[in-house]
Amino acid sequence: MAETSPLPLFRDQLRVVNLGLPSFADDVRAQGVSVVDPAWAPPAAGDARAVAALHELLSWPEAVRARIRQANQEAARRLVAAQPFAVRVRPAREVVPGMHSKLVLHAGPPVTWERMCGPMRGGVIGALMLEGLASTREQAETLAASGEIEFSPCHHHGSVGPMAGIMTASMPVWVLENRAFGNKAYCTLNEGLGKVLRYGAFSEEVLTRLRWMRDELGPALDQALLARGPLDLRSIVAQALQMGDEGHNRNRAGTSLVLRALGPALVESELPREAVARILRFMDGNDHFFLNLTMPACKSAVDPISDIPFSTVISTMARNGTDFGVRLASLPGRWFTAEASLVDGLYLPGFSAADAARDIGDSVITETAGIGGFAMAAAPAIVRFVGGRASDALRLTSQMYDITIAEHDAYQIPALDFRGTPTGIDVVRVVETGILPVVNTGIAHKEPGVGMVGAGLVKPPVACFRDALVAYVDAHGPRARMGG
Amino acid sequence: MAETSPLPLFRDQLRVVNLGLPSFADDVRAQGVSVVDPAWAPPAAGDARAVAALHELLSWPEAVRARIRQANQEAARRLVAAQPFAVRVRPAREVVPGMHSKLVLHAGPPVTWERMCGPMRGGVIGALMLEGLASTREQAETLAASGEIEFSPCHHHGSVGPMAGIMTASMPVWVLENRAFGNKAYCTLNEGLGKVLRYGAFSEEVLTRLRWMRDELGPALDQALLARGPLDLRSIVAQALQMGDEGHNRNRAGTSLVLRALGPALVESELPREAVARILRFMDGNDHFFLNLTMPACKSAVDPISDIPFSTVISTMARNGTDFGVRLASLPGRWFTAEASLVDGLYLPGFSAADAARDIGDSVITETAGIGGFAMAAAPAIVRFVGGRASDALRLTSQMYDITIAEHDAYQIPALDFRGTPTGIDVVRVVETGILPVVNTGIAHKEPGVGMVGAGLVKPPVACFRDALVAYVDAHGPRARMGG
Repeated sequence: MAETSPLPLFRDQLRVVNLGLPSFADDVRAQGVSVVDPAWAPPAAGDARAVAALHELLSWPEAVRARIRQANQEAARRLVAAQPFAVRVRPAREVVPGMHSKLVLHAGPPVTWERMCGPMRGGVIGALMLEGLASTREQAETLAASGEIEFSPCHHHGSVGPMAGIMTASMPVWVLENRAFGNKAYCTLNEGLGKVLRYGAFSEEVLTRLRWMRDELGPALDQALLARGPLDLRSIVAQALQMGDEGHNRNRAGTSLVLRALGPALVESELPREAVARILRFMDGNDHFFLNLTMPACKSAVDPISDIPFSTVISTMARNGTDFGVRLASLPGRWFTAEASLVDGLYLPGFSAADAARDIGDSVITETAGIGGFAMAAAPAIVRFVGGRASDALRLTSQMYDITIAEHDAYQIPALDFRGTPTGIDVVRVVETGILPVVNTGIAHKEPGVGMVGAGLVKPPVACFRDALVAYVDAHGPRARMGG
Repeated sequence: MAETSPLPLFRDQLRVVNLGLPSFADDVRAQGVSVVDPAWAPPAAGDARAVAALHELLSWPEAVRARIRQANQEAARRLVAAQPFAVRVRPAREVVPGMHSKLVLHAGPPVTWERMCGPMRGGVIGALMLEGLASTREQAETLAASGEIEFSPCHHHGSVGPMAGIMTASMPVWVLENRAFGNKAYCTLNEGLGKVLRYGAFSEEVLTRLRWMRDELGPALDQALLARGPLDLRSIVAQALQMGDEGHNRNRAGTSLVLRALGPALVESELPREAVARILRFMDGNDHFFLNLTMPACKSAVDPISDIPFSTVISTMARNGTDFGVRLASLPGRWFTAEASLVDGLYLPGFSAADAARDIGDSVITETAGIGGFAMAAAPAIVRFVGGRASDALRLTSQMYDITIAEHDAYQIPALDFRGTPTGIDVVRVVETGILPVVNTGIAHKEPGVGMVGAGLVKPPVACFRDALVAYVDAHGPRARMGG
């Protein structure tokens, strides 16, 4: 027995810290000894370039590191202070910066027609037909490949788009204003689930719905907003998080609250009663209606941090179905990209992982601004849609506090005793800990023209975070600071 | 040191179970020894009559105890199978069994005008004025005391009413049908918060709103229901529990879903557009609108268990502000009452516990049917309204599984990995464990005419559960079983 050993190590009551294989701890635990397992891993999973960058960062003088902290505090302040209001719904050509009749905006970082994934090509085809620039799929594909059409990321035009994220001149868009900073953001209206343009479908059913949205829904929402006054999205998102939404893949509460807010003004408008009823039914039938408001709300919240020297906070995450891209607050205009991931998810009947396109869409702007996957603990019911157990939702949100710099003061999680959502991703912490931002998302079919096939959780590729950190260290190192 | 002691007790590693004072465990734990504290207490807290009743129950032959289990299984089956639909909104006089022009229904067990609490008297005064039976408070009080008015519990007329629960002939009521069993239930329309009849207010503002509800709101809702078809409340309650409601004091999601469901039909009705807008604004402005649907939904679910011989399940809990009353499935028609409790809650600015009436209202029908306080884990945000921390919501729901006989298959709690809500309270378990049903509730001012002053959690008085158990044992004991 232990107490008979002559060696103190084997005589005293042991309290073990295990840094080795888990099985070591199991053996010790089996003998009734308490064991602590720190979740230790080598920084940056031992990646040499990333470790070197982290090492250099740690060697910088305290004055520089204070400046970084200050820059990140400023980023946190701006993110949390955002006051997004929906003020109008107008055709993109009237309001979106740089929009013209041959411009097609898309989700994610820049991508050419040649490199576009199937669902994004499908969205482009549908949009060119909607705009009357092509009448068949073949004509649209020829035009798209001809060089006559300009492709550009939504993010370069103050905009965001879910999934393929296609926006063209005639589409009605929400106009959001961040009243804390005066900047604006734009997003198309949500079409619902299934066969829709943003998942790459472009059948007549899809185009008919888009024409109705252009001719009836958009103008009606604009009238209602003008009559009622702007929608305070900071308040509505905060309420929706108390009602089981997380603002990315669960938007039933937010959709309800917007319907409640706009309903009376729609009723009092000049619209025919049957049009009002049609609009209310459309909103009621589409629990993702609110997604296209949380996205520009988040875009309007992150744009004020797009140029904060020395900040290590991520100002954009976005995917185009080919690449996942990241931008940093201190490196405006530079995208760091890596191949977009496959989504781990639940599939609609008749589909499987073999049908899935890679991760796509600007909707990861919600996670960038502290909601969506980062607020999953507010929305345990979402696991029915994206897979997993309710406890996963709590665990994933809790992890995100390890890679963020702030807790949102308005966006709170009841189940965590109203703790603010983890807000503002620090690329240094992501690389150091290897904890990747958690993103929940829809899944598009990989071929153009099919549509949605599922939803799930996705881990962004670690490479673009490492590249961003390396570039940051290069750009802010001693030589750069000396103006060299 | 321990290992030097000659006695095995002091030499071996101890694993202690502490049944004594908690401080014993603390002392042992302070020495690094693991301690288990079973939450043990004497059955029925040592109450002699209750212990005797429990003892007798345990001595009954297995055949009888099997019959009890079978009866309770049947009660569970009926509770969970309920399919409440809202089918119409009609004036009480047309639909509520036994309603007549001199009848005033009230919440809770039977109570005379003389014993009525302040807010219930206030509700009676307002209702008599609304019905044109009195024009002043004094006239109403004289009439109420004259014996000319019949007072009767809502529960005796297939109805339930929140707080004072006053219902008179002209009031519009929801007509619910439990399609699994064909029974009906009725409830007035919710007036909102603050100065309202159900909290004992009866000013002109209150009466004007009630007249509008009678003349415009009630008929409009009826038209919308007829046009749209019945509302499936089983489905809506299930959804609302996924959206942070618990169906008693948090009804924001349910209210939203009902508004979404009825909105289009209201728009398409013959009503003037300004009336439709007024109705939508009223619903949008009153997040408790849905309470008056969850209550009759629950009433319609428990009425089919009001006469199940041998069942120990509670078929009714209700309070009139003077008494808290309980009925058992196997003792139809018998109320077991004890003085209503004071509520532990949060108060509106300017009010305190000194202003509070005792626990009042039929809304505890929600807990009786497995939602409300029993589903608090679905609604952590409710602690902002009733006090406490989010973790309390989880803990309280978890406790309720100890005193219930079933888990609801449709009403599920996301945060508990979709576990069904604890449904069907067994009076034997309540008395044995001393765990009282958790009820969250509004708080009325104790004087007539004031209105709401707060909200909180309340523990029902244990005496009525013990009395019910004693009566049950008397009624089902050997002599009774032999027809003696």
